[in-house]
Amino acid sequence: MTPTITAFAQSPDRGRGLARDMRVRWALEEVGQPYEVRLVTFAEMKEAAHRARHPFGQIPTYEEGGLVLFESGAIVLHIAERHVGLLPEEANARARAIAWMFAALGTVEPPILELQNATLLERDKPWSDERLPIVKDRIRVRLGELSDHLGQDDWLGDGFSAADLMMVHALRRLEGSGLLDEHPSLFAYVARGQARPAYQRAFDAQLAVFTGRAPIRG
Amino acid sequence: MTPTITAFAQSPDRGRGLARDMRVRWALEEVGQPYEVRLVTFAEMKEAAHRARHPFGQIPTYEEGGLVLFESGAIVLHIAERHVGLLPEEANARARAIAWMFAALGTVEPPILELQNATLLERDKPWSDERLPIVKDRIRVRLGELSDHLGQDDWLGDGFSAADLMMVHALRRLEGSGLLDEHPSLFAYVARGQARPAYQRAFDAQLAVFTGRAPIRG
Repeated sequence: MTPTITAFAQSPDRGRGLARDMRVRWALEEVGQPYEVRLVTFAEMKEAAHRARHPFGQIPTYEEGGLVLFESGAIVLHIAERHVGLLPEEANARARAIAWMFAALGTVEPPILELQNATLLERDKPWSDERLPIVKDRIRVRLGELSDHLGQDDWLGDGFSAADLMMVHALRRLEGSGLLDEHPSLFAYVARGQARPAYQRAFDAQLAVFTGRAPIRG
Repeated sequence: MTPTITAFAQSPDRGRGLARDMRVRWALEEVGQPYEVRLVTFAEMKEAAHRARHPFGQIPTYEEGGLVLFESGAIVLHIAERHVGLLPEEANARARAIAWMFAALGTVEPPILELQNATLLERDKPWSDERLPIVKDRIRVRLGELSDHLGQDDWLGDGFSAADLMMVHALRRLEGSGLLDEHPSLFAYVARGQARPAYQRAFDAQLAVFTGRAPIRG
């Protein structure tokens, strides 16, 4: 059965692939699972029909037969558990990769979301200039720790996993902040993720929604 | 094999059970799994020995034979997958409960963490009084949506699950903010979680670390 996901009808990032449907598209491309996309407007996202799928009125969602899921982390984990290629097979390595998925969402991304709020929602507030460096320093702590852990490795575990997928996409939200440039190993890590063919197919598919043209790559 | 978790040697909340070891203790109590606790000081948390367990130098961690995990969500999911009682058996209901675990950590908790930062780290900043209502309004949006979803139900799914465990503990971090009082159904939901015998055993165990006395309940 072909799953259906939801994505923004009007991408607020103009096709830069920063919305969370990108994570689900990427996971589906990594495992070679075709999927359908239902585009929703901002108004539709807040209506009852969509809230039945996503109680917080956001994207992405995932529908497959009688299953309806929300939260990109849960959807990627669901895909990873039902296909080969996104999680190690050995039990301990698998649990460890899932821990890193949670770390991407629960430890690394929250200060990044706080920076997004600071720059998007509080940009015109009188405290913006003085407060931004404080918020950025919170992110710097996490990036330093992540960089220390990664060291010279290509991926968080032995080989690419759903943990890297979630982490690379969370880190991409720092583009333009200059913070990622302070850690060349993390900059290279994100580039490594983006260079994967599955990432590129997913990126092109979401970009095509914005441009209105079919994806360039197949 | 008895797992070992880590917790604060000096509880910063003076035994109120708001640290994330509480989530792991609660999960272990729900499934009846005895555990050992290794207490770590703030200094020890940042040393290499602990960072080998937790790259971000935090608690809790979970060790069981050769497995070392971090991130409370990942640890609770690991426990839930290996014992009966914290996740539904039916596949779709199970995936849905896991989605709600991610929602607690990825959608409901981030604005709560932002409020914690605002009240703990930015309390003395000149913008504090004007900014706090903005941060609180972000939480209100999420609480309204969560309350709408919960409706008259006792738990997020059919029966208590790890999703409620994560959500109740995330919501407890709003104590003292007045925000939970605006939604009587959520206030009752948190109280319902706290009334569970497993919660109470876990709470007493973490409180005993602070008081230096043995837990009152067994």
